[in-house]
Amino acid sequence: MRAEYDRQLRELEEELFDMGSMCQQAVAFSGAVLIGDDETLREQVCSLEMEIDKKDRQIENICTGLLLRQTPVAGDLRFVSAALKIVSDMERIGDQAADIAELSRYISEKPLLEKVHISDICCVVMNMVTDSVEALVKKDEILARKVIGDDDIADELFVRIKEELVSLIQENRTEPQEILDLLMAAKYFERVGDHAVNIAEWVEFIVTGMHDDRECGH
Amino acid sequence: MRAEYDRQLRELEEELFDMGSMCQQAVAFSGAVLIGDDETLREQVCSLEMEIDKKDRQIENICTGLLLRQTPVAGDLRFVSAALKIVSDMERIGDQAADIAELSRYISEKPLLEKVHISDICCVVMNMVTDSVEALVKKDEILARKVIGDDDIADELFVRIKEELVSLIQENRTEPQEILDLLMAAKYFERVGDHAVNIAEWVEFIVTGMHDDRECGH
Repeated sequence: MRAEYDRQLRELEEELFDMGSMCQQAVAFSGAVLIGDDETLREQVCSLEMEIDKKDRQIENICTGLLLRQTPVAGDLRFVSAALKIVSDMERIGDQAADIAELSRYISEKPLLEKVHISDICCVVMNMVTDSVEALVKKDEILARKVIGDDDIADELFVRIKEELVSLIQENRTEPQEILDLLMAAKYFERVGDHAVNIAEWVEFIVTGMHDDRECGH
Repeated sequence: MRAEYDRQLRELEEELFDMGSMCQQAVAFSGAVLIGDDETLREQVCSLEMEIDKKDRQIENICTGLLLRQTPVAGDLRFVSAALKIVSDMERIGDQAADIAELSRYISEKPLLEKVHISDICCVVMNMVTDSVEALVKKDEILARKVIGDDDIADELFVRIKEELVSLIQENRTEPQEILDLLMAAKYFERVGDHAVNIAEWVEFIVTGMHDDRECGH
């Protein structure tokens, strides 16, 4: 019974880290697709997103199994219930990456991308995802707090991109459609950052037993 | 033991429906704030969003309690695990409503709202939220399927609003900033619709034991 319990907990950890790596990849690829418009890479984001969805259900089953058939002790219970929330955030990261890859079809004017800070926001949130997964693996509260702090950078970049897009509209030389698509892409990246923050907050909860209440609208 | 189990299940149902009503209200109010710019109503969306977050945690605790201390039978287990997912979607609906209410501050040019189908998308997704909650209360699979079907209308309205905004950019008579904010508001409404669909899919799961796999990017 105890051996089976330990095995299931280890499996949960491993699957969770796998799912995290897939999310990192999906976000990195979606950024690359946006800039390079590579059809093969776009399909890879789509397959990754489906793999991530599968992992989501798989991990949920492990969690329910652990909760139902085993009786996790306090610390493990925190880990299992946090895992259930973390997979939801990871699943959303996969969705956003797929949305970005899909949008990239409509942004044909690639020099446009250099006029706004889109690759910067992509880099920042990619690192946030990587760090949140590493914080989870190592149960590293300090790294988790770094992720939470980095969200301000992502938010500021989104505001900056929006201002840059306003200027582009005023210049009147860019297809309006592409400007609106680029705003959506930036928003998706910003949302990826929000989900990395959620994961980091769950890591804090796993380590400390405390979960931050967030302000209105976040 | 059995009486306590039944009491907890009933409590879970009631809390879930309460949370659903709050979501309906939050979305309705956020639409009203966007159009009317009423500061008191904006504050109410913000308080509702915080109430919804509180309910989220409260319901999660009831679910964990049921899973750990009771041993739900198959049908109830489906309900409890679906509840855990549904509250995440409801919590996101509260977030989107708060985001819309916040954005409404920056859309000062109210006649602009009549030039695009924003109140239509608001109506459609508001009804989707109401129907998804009703489907949950009544465990009504047919109503749940209606919600899933209505998502196409919300998606089409979003595409239409985007086209209308492109035209507004071309006309060159509207503040670009307001156009971008309006696109974000439309996107938030469309997301509310997505979350209503998720809730409806969980209702299907509660009733049938089957959960639809969604396509890439959804």
